[in-house]
Amino acid sequence: MAKTILVETSARHIHVSQEHLEILFGKGYELTKKKDLSQPGQYACAERIDVVGPKKTLPGVSILGPVRPSTQVELSLTDARSIGVAAPIRESGDIAGSGACKLVGPCGEVEISEGVIAAKRHIHMTPEDAEVFGVSDKEIVKVKVDGLRPLIFDDVVVRVSPKFGLAMHIDTDEANAAFGLKNGEIVK
Amino acid sequence: MAKTILVETSARHIHVSQEHLEILFGKGYELTKKKDLSQPGQYACAERIDVVGPKKTLPGVSILGPVRPSTQVELSLTDARSIGVAAPIRESGDIAGSGACKLVGPCGEVEISEGVIAAKRHIHMTPEDAEVFGVSDKEIVKVKVDGLRPLIFDDVVVRVSPKFGLAMHIDTDEANAAFGLKNGEIVK
Repeated sequence: MAKTILVETSARHIHVSQEHLEILFGKGYELTKKKDLSQPGQYACAERIDVVGPKKTLPGVSILGPVRPSTQVELSLTDARSIGVAAPIRESGDIAGSGACKLVGPCGEVEISEGVIAAKRHIHMTPEDAEVFGVSDKEIVKVKVDGLRPLIFDDVVVRVSPKFGLAMHIDTDEANAAFGLKNGEIVK
Repeated sequence: MAKTILVETSARHIHVSQEHLEILFGKGYELTKKKDLSQPGQYACAERIDVVGPKKTLPGVSILGPVRPSTQVELSLTDARSIGVAAPIRESGDIAGSGACKLVGPCGEVEISEGVIAAKRHIHMTPEDAEVFGVSDKEIVKVKVDGLRPLIFDDVVVRVSPKFGLAMHIDTDEANAAFGLKNGEIVK
């Protein structure tokens, strides 16, 4: 039997820079860890902020820690359309020229001119996992997922690093398109 | 080259019974045609009503005409979850035991105990189309769609009738999972 990969659905979330965190929550503020995530060192935080677009606000969006060099808002395309923001499909960190929005926290607000993306679907894996699956960093693979509406994602990027844990990440639109999916299998 | 099929995204919409239409809009009310749809005899109406769930309201949802024997609300799973309604994935017309909601129009409101579904993805085609594609009514096929996030839908039901026009229908979650798709191709 083919080895399967845990598929995790990323709900809308935000990575913040320390500078923006302090504007939103106050001078010297530090994130409060609530729950560890599948990727080592990454965690969900207790803090939530509002994401404001020209058409609507998404209230109480989770922040994921730790802080990063740049603020990045990851939305589904359904979310992005609903608030009136054009979010390109990008890999995490590739935010040049991406969507703009306003972030509102309890102590202040920040207008970001870029940083709103729909995360490109991807698989995190270690070099050891990559050997098992016979794939390499940046390779594009097809992944078959089961669910009430099974489908095959035709362009999933593999990202290999010793810092990663094995997991495939998709957004809520992609999860709902399959619905009920738990595991995926790389098909060639 | 393989023959392609136009893929249409069904936004959330409602089919109403004459009885419910008259409660919502007044005695003897008739639907106002706004735009013909790809399926012969089907049309978008000027009338809009609110779909109310336990958690939230979807305001101003389009009605599609003509009236049908039973009222049916077709939502994406993102929509259904947002308003707190459990919508099963069903073919149109198969509403026994499906989701409940309240519908609110300018003249009244209706509580429906069933009728809220997420439409199972499907292809409408004529018997002549079915011959060209080598498929038959109720057959389940895989459909490959191009988009910014290409994918293969693994369980698309074919529906054949001389009354149909050739088109594949998916919901907004499925459309956003592919994003930018226009055409599909049946793959075996």
